[in-house]
Amino acid sequence: MNQINHVAIVGATHGNEFTGAYLIKKFEQFPHLIQRSSFNIQTLLANPEAFKVGRRYIDKDLNRCFLNQDLQNSTLSSYEDIRAKAINQILGPKGNPQVDVILDLHTTTANMGLSIIIGNQHPFCLQLSAYLSAINPLVKVCLTTTNLDSSLLKSLCQYGFVIEVGPVAQGVLNADLFYKTEKLIYTILDYLEAYNQNSISSDNHTLTLYQSIGTIDYPRNNLGEIQAMIHPQLQFRDYEPLHPGEPIFLSFEGQDINYEGESTVYPIFINEAAYYEKGIAMCLTQKQEVNLNWE
Amino acid sequence: MNQINHVAIVGATHGNEFTGAYLIKKFEQFPHLIQRSSFNIQTLLANPEAFKVGRRYIDKDLNRCFLNQDLQNSTLSSYEDIRAKAINQILGPKGNPQVDVILDLHTTTANMGLSIIIGNQHPFCLQLSAYLSAINPLVKVCLTTTNLDSSLLKSLCQYGFVIEVGPVAQGVLNADLFYKTEKLIYTILDYLEAYNQNSISSDNHTLTLYQSIGTIDYPRNNLGEIQAMIHPQLQFRDYEPLHPGEPIFLSFEGQDINYEGESTVYPIFINEAAYYEKGIAMCLTQKQEVNLNWE
Repeated sequence: MNQINHVAIVGATHGNEFTGAYLIKKFEQFPHLIQRSSFNIQTLLANPEAFKVGRRYIDKDLNRCFLNQDLQNSTLSSYEDIRAKAINQILGPKGNPQVDVILDLHTTTANMGLSIIIGNQHPFCLQLSAYLSAINPLVKVCLTTTNLDSSLLKSLCQYGFVIEVGPVAQGVLNADLFYKTEKLIYTILDYLEAYNQNSISSDNHTLTLYQSIGTIDYPRNNLGEIQAMIHPQLQFRDYEPLHPGEPIFLSFEGQDINYEGESTVYPIFINEAAYYEKGIAMCLTQKQEVNLNWE
Repeated sequence: MNQINHVAIVGATHGNEFTGAYLIKKFEQFPHLIQRSSFNIQTLLANPEAFKVGRRYIDKDLNRCFLNQDLQNSTLSSYEDIRAKAINQILGPKGNPQVDVILDLHTTTANMGLSIIIGNQHPFCLQLSAYLSAINPLVKVCLTTTNLDSSLLKSLCQYGFVIEVGPVAQGVLNADLFYKTEKLIYTILDYLEAYNQNSISSDNHTLTLYQSIGTIDYPRNNLGEIQAMIHPQLQFRDYEPLHPGEPIFLSFEGQDINYEGESTVYPIFINEAAYYEKGIAMCLTQKQEVNLNWE
């Protein structure tokens, strides 16, 4: 792989996820904190209007606006569609981008700690992830396949990483998570610097990867209204095993609803506020150990 | 005091506080749960449009729309102004209401457990509060003076109670808090029934009351932008003593900012998401023991 020349740190892709937004503001005020000698770095407040009003988005979810066909569709004119096209000009164009690495900063109401979400199993992504989780056991690594057909901002370049931190309510700053996220960013930047200088030590031979395999919606009535909540036994248990037959929802009338899958899974994004409208109560993953000894 | 004849339970005064909204839906589906023999009861989804889109409000905070002069001002025509006037017709009119008791169900991102917020020190409000906190140590009682000049929904009648439950993120259902809130409502309804039947035992002679004395804003720059976060040592410490000189904020650069007041206070609504735009980082209260032996 070639040298890393351009890195972008993106915050406020969702306007009510304050950690990333205020980190961007901090980095803009103190740029030396993120400057490294071997690559250029830029920051971007992705959805300034949504951030201004403290909402996830103005018209539609910006982080679903990066499909190639939508970026090229001049009839799409919502605020976020226009903003996605502008970001595609700043960081992209998708498929031939100006940046080599994107760090897209998000928060979640789920208990996901410091999660890195990668979009492919390129050795570079896996090795960086293995390094981060080896030096900090709070770091978990998820894989949600993100190719050029993806609508996510991180799909603008091949090495797009989402940093997903929680639990924290929308529209709130949590100082502890703010500083953990900031420290994680510096660790990543230092890694990229060492990578460019060929001084990466490849001590990390395996990586625990949580691979996305699907989602589960809340039980709903025929009007689409939710009929049950995340079960208290599952709330805040992201990345823990969920076995067949274990309770997953609790109905408003107090009835347990059990997980009916056939194999043990590892739910993440459990009770994410923004996913109620998407019909997602949680995402299911499979836990796997990946061997990095490809040489 | 006279008999309690009419009680209203109100949910979704803020559309992204789901606990109250879904409790109202549950009570509408199973009305026998809240029916009692000695009074009429009605439920109200206060801000259905905001609930539908999962936002606190459409145009403005409904729970600041109940000033007498605003209710009578026909030129005010935002969605929430119109809705407040409709609610004033359903439950009010303010000053001469159809309901004797309002239970207004709210949630907060602050760690306020099961809080009862009363608007005056009427013996009826104090005795009910004392009863609730005596049988459940999770119940805390706050006093924010609410007279006819108040803009809060609960000011429509003399015995207006806000039930404020947290911590829970906006737009999220927490099953544990849902059931605790539901149970608290049944306890209140049973108390009102016993009150009407003159079978209240007045065993509770003192009440711990947290009286609101003011608010503190986040440190801001001259553009109004926040410069610091709630200090990790204070986060989730609602109702605990804050002594002069103790850290209250942590700046983005990592500097402690200490509480400069002269006396010990008891902060509540610490890091409430909806209060960022109101310029409130927390509310300060004084803790006091109230003697209920007025007879």
